[in-house]
Amino acid sequence: MIAGLKVFAPATVANVACGYDILGFAIDGPGDEIIVNRVDKPGLVITKITGCKNKLPLEVEKNTAGFAALKLLEFLKEDKIGIEMEIHKKMPFGSGLGSSAASAAAGVMAINELLERPLTRRELLPFAVLGEQIADGAYHADNVAPSLLGGIIFIRSNEELDVHRVPVPKGLYATVIYPHVKILTRDARKILSDVVSLDDHITQNGNLGGLILGLYNSNFGLIKRSLQDVIIEPQRAQLIPGFFELQEKVLNAGALGCSISGAGPSIFALSDSLITAQNVGVEMTKVYSRLKIESELFISSINQRGTYLV
Amino acid sequence: MIAGLKVFAPATVANVACGYDILGFAIDGPGDEIIVNRVDKPGLVITKITGCKNKLPLEVEKNTAGFAALKLLEFLKEDKIGIEMEIHKKMPFGSGLGSSAASAAAGVMAINELLERPLTRRELLPFAVLGEQIADGAYHADNVAPSLLGGIIFIRSNEELDVHRVPVPKGLYATVIYPHVKILTRDARKILSDVVSLDDHITQNGNLGGLILGLYNSNFGLIKRSLQDVIIEPQRAQLIPGFFELQEKVLNAGALGCSISGAGPSIFALSDSLITAQNVGVEMTKVYSRLKIESELFISSINQRGTYLV
Repeated sequence: MIAGLKVFAPATVANVACGYDILGFAIDGPGDEIIVNRVDKPGLVITKITGCKNKLPLEVEKNTAGFAALKLLEFLKEDKIGIEMEIHKKMPFGSGLGSSAASAAAGVMAINELLERPLTRRELLPFAVLGEQIADGAYHADNVAPSLLGGIIFIRSNEELDVHRVPVPKGLYATVIYPHVKILTRDARKILSDVVSLDDHITQNGNLGGLILGLYNSNFGLIKRSLQDVIIEPQRAQLIPGFFELQEKVLNAGALGCSISGAGPSIFALSDSLITAQNVGVEMTKVYSRLKIESELFISSINQRGTYLV
Repeated sequence: MIAGLKVFAPATVANVACGYDILGFAIDGPGDEIIVNRVDKPGLVITKITGCKNKLPLEVEKNTAGFAALKLLEFLKEDKIGIEMEIHKKMPFGSGLGSSAASAAAGVMAINELLERPLTRRELLPFAVLGEQIADGAYHADNVAPSLLGGIIFIRSNEELDVHRVPVPKGLYATVIYPHVKILTRDARKILSDVVSLDDHITQNGNLGGLILGLYNSNFGLIKRSLQDVIIEPQRAQLIPGFFELQEKVLNAGALGCSISGAGPSIFALSDSLITAQNVGVEMTKVYSRLKIESELFISSINQRGTYLV
């Protein structure tokens, strides 16, 4: 067994326009770091959490990373070994970038590495999803799976964790802006109508299929036509100041598409080159400067690596 | 210019479980034959229609194949040449197997061949869709596109005719039964609720994405899990006697999935081998024998050829 180690789990964009609840992708950074060390005293303890202003519980059973790690240790019948865990939140919290998912992914990966990889990455997924459920309430893999596995992840069914990697075309870049406004995931859920018109369903279904085909065939034209959300975005955009103005500017700057990341307030765009992704970033930043809202910008390739040992 | 020729356009299965309005595939047979011959007298005339008990109009502007052919001739500025057209309906009418779509596909293909291929197959599509619209009222490519182009066709948008071929895994076979009961497309449409629950939308979106990924990766397990329709089938199945009994027997016989073809009453199943497709056919036939409803059975590979010159 290894004495101690550090892992990094990246931020993720879930929903991805037409893929509400079933699509997500990882970006290079920001992300969370978790350090684990073997100690003599049996059991898992969280000794330190930084970067979240005391908002997260040290209690293992109530902590996303802790609970995920604990469930994994129990499954492996290794819950009597002594482990100290430090969680370093290095990404914004409540931003729509999968902060709790990154912690859960890092938690299971750290334990698996410490025990010299008894499970594959894919086998770790259910434990990470259980961890995120602590924070989020829902059993959803659309942030956890891309953070853990990397790439663009399609989830046929969250209940069955029927999870698949979709090819990433060369040249695909993400631009993500996190405007410092507060949206509670709870409110973002409550705002959604529980029905959809049949016409919108057909349109969204067509766009989802088009996006997957476009990614498979590196068909950027098809990706661009498909990166539209006629169901969720029109309902949630009102929660994000400046959303439609920003979206228009970003599309004019050449982005393939632009929509809400997760439940917001972060907004993502995809582009077919780094230079376009950078131009898009300039436009995004301008909008929030003018609105006098602080923001953070991230420009990234699609992170194919997922969570990794530092 | 060629003096005369015959083309064949195959029957098609549209909707394909989770792909309402956006997925369709062609089978080898049955289908429609169209014969065209050059004559001196200018203009297009339909001289004969067989196989439909006088149900279809000889008038070019009101006939699916005639109208599609006429629109193509007008586009090519060749509407003054003399052409006689015979339409031989060799497939059941009002069966949910795209009878009018096959006529429209055959109509445009016959003209294009007669004129020595001024357009590509893909370029013929809008004219064929206009033809089918005469019969169906809707501007939909989910039968016309597979009949004309062959294979499994995904349609991101019918309005834009954003049409794409999805790979067909080796070993994929279709079994289709047409029970002789009458369903009007109009009634099948009227029965549908114009809203869908958000949960069902997400499930269906997941299944559509899963089906496309499964076809790309020849992943029959994923295809099987994805070939489900939680939205349209539960509403329309009541129009087809014995539907649920048949579906259960077909799935027990090893089919990947089983649902309504088009607006019904035909029912299709997909299987991962010819032998399973044949076993599925036996089960299908038994159900309608016992119900004392006449039926026709078709077992076929996925027809990759589409409409062709005989």
